[in-house]
Amino acid sequence: MSDMTGNRPPDHDAPAEVFRTAPPLVEVPEAPRRTPAEEARALMTLGTIGTLGTLSEDGGPWASVVGFVVLEDGSPVLLVSTLAEHGRNLARDPRASLSFGEPPPAGVDPLDSGRVSLAGTAVQPEGEEADRALAAYQEAFPAARLYAGFGDFTLWMLRVERVRWVGGFGRMDSVTPESYAAAEPDPTAPAAKRAVEHLNEDHADALLEIAQALAGYPDATSAHCRRIDRYGLDLWIRTPRGDAPARVGFAEPCTAPDGLRSASVELVRRARAADPEPAV
Amino acid sequence: MSDMTGNRPPDHDAPAEVFRTAPPLVEVPEAPRRTPAEEARALMTLGTIGTLGTLSEDGGPWASVVGFVVLEDGSPVLLVSTLAEHGRNLARDPRASLSFGEPPPAGVDPLDSGRVSLAGTAVQPEGEEADRALAAYQEAFPAARLYAGFGDFTLWMLRVERVRWVGGFGRMDSVTPESYAAAEPDPTAPAAKRAVEHLNEDHADALLEIAQALAGYPDATSAHCRRIDRYGLDLWIRTPRGDAPARVGFAEPCTAPDGLRSASVELVRRARAADPEPAV
Repeated sequence: MSDMTGNRPPDHDAPAEVFRTAPPLVEVPEAPRRTPAEEARALMTLGTIGTLGTLSEDGGPWASVVGFVVLEDGSPVLLVSTLAEHGRNLARDPRASLSFGEPPPAGVDPLDSGRVSLAGTAVQPEGEEADRALAAYQEAFPAARLYAGFGDFTLWMLRVERVRWVGGFGRMDSVTPESYAAAEPDPTAPAAKRAVEHLNEDHADALLEIAQALAGYPDATSAHCRRIDRYGLDLWIRTPRGDAPARVGFAEPCTAPDGLRSASVELVRRARAADPEPAV
Repeated sequence: MSDMTGNRPPDHDAPAEVFRTAPPLVEVPEAPRRTPAEEARALMTLGTIGTLGTLSEDGGPWASVVGFVVLEDGSPVLLVSTLAEHGRNLARDPRASLSFGEPPPAGVDPLDSGRVSLAGTAVQPEGEEADRALAAYQEAFPAARLYAGFGDFTLWMLRVERVRWVGGFGRMDSVTPESYAAAEPDPTAPAAKRAVEHLNEDHADALLEIAQALAGYPDATSAHCRRIDRYGLDLWIRTPRGDAPARVGFAEPCTAPDGLRSASVELVRRARAADPEPAV
């Protein structure tokens, strides 16, 4: 339940006290975050297995698992068979929605994790665009080198018209298709899951120092890393006053896939150099 | 690509030779399998995070991540907020589809794994049915003890009208709602992933003996366990003649969650007692 209490969506029809968390004791600068468009792009770039929403013959919804890969502008590419209902559905009505959710981190409520829903129109790419789309798909799914040639398979691209990102409890936003297409994917995203595990397993002391010196919680008794990205990390902090979420930013955004390690080391160095002033 | 070649869906529009695998050299009895209805129930019982297909205001499809739990008859229970588009969609048009896919096993094409699509009508349960549905949901999602009481959350049950199961490449079937509701969930399903890992990591020799003595491949040079269930296991066998999939059945179906271990031990004992007659 503590997962729920840290991030209050502004308009749940619920008493305010259930969302109360321990406030920081020291004022800290607001830490940089990925924009919702960047969050959506980071997630979709991680994907490859998502769920497609299509319209069945009677106009009802049909949700089914598909493989996908996104191109440089975030457009998803699908390769589906008309032996599958979603393949027949797309051929009849190209309106489609694609959803991807990242696997929930261990020990966290499974609904407190990132996911994206895209909606738009499926089109069959042609010429050079089709070549690029197929090459990208086959790189992600080597077996598709075989079945892409079967007569029942069709290559589709989703022209994205709506984007909804949910980062977990209380973190969510809609994104315009233009900002989704323009957002830079986070180069560290593929390394993030392992980095979070490593920080929690091997560097709990360093996380606590960061929480005490840089996050505004000099009375922190433990700190758990919930998420990491190119701009910083999200902590879940325990204090004698209760739990609290906090965000701590890196000195510089990571620009390379392997940048999380040195950025985290810099945070620890900064925490040790700081002279926290407990406000209690 | 070898994943594709073992299980030929009958009517892909493709040349037959791409699906060719090494035939067995010794005739073996057909091994028992879960029915498609049992496969669908086993998967849905594993779930808790799936994707819901609903209809947006313009009648287009909307795919989005939801938590779910299934009741004893396989009916999914959802608890969703009208702050989320899917919650507003259901309130306007109760037609819905729920899809769940199991995480792909390591080293296997991610599309060669099990998934289920259900479609039907969402209803708001009442009275005792609502109590049971909410209790089941809250057991799977402890945080829901908090937010189930928020005014924006609604409890829904999906009345299942259509069921489609895909077990991976070439294994798929439609299932009537009646047989889905009546199918017994596989008690070993929660233990299957770990059992497959354990067999492959620690008992490769035993798997090879099973392949040679019981699966009809006396010339097998290695065998990898792909799946396991209450009735037996699926192997991927290497031979000098090429690769092949094979199914080997247990002496008796497992009736308890911890039954896979003794059933596997019995298979190894049987393999060692057998006197394989190589047909080459």
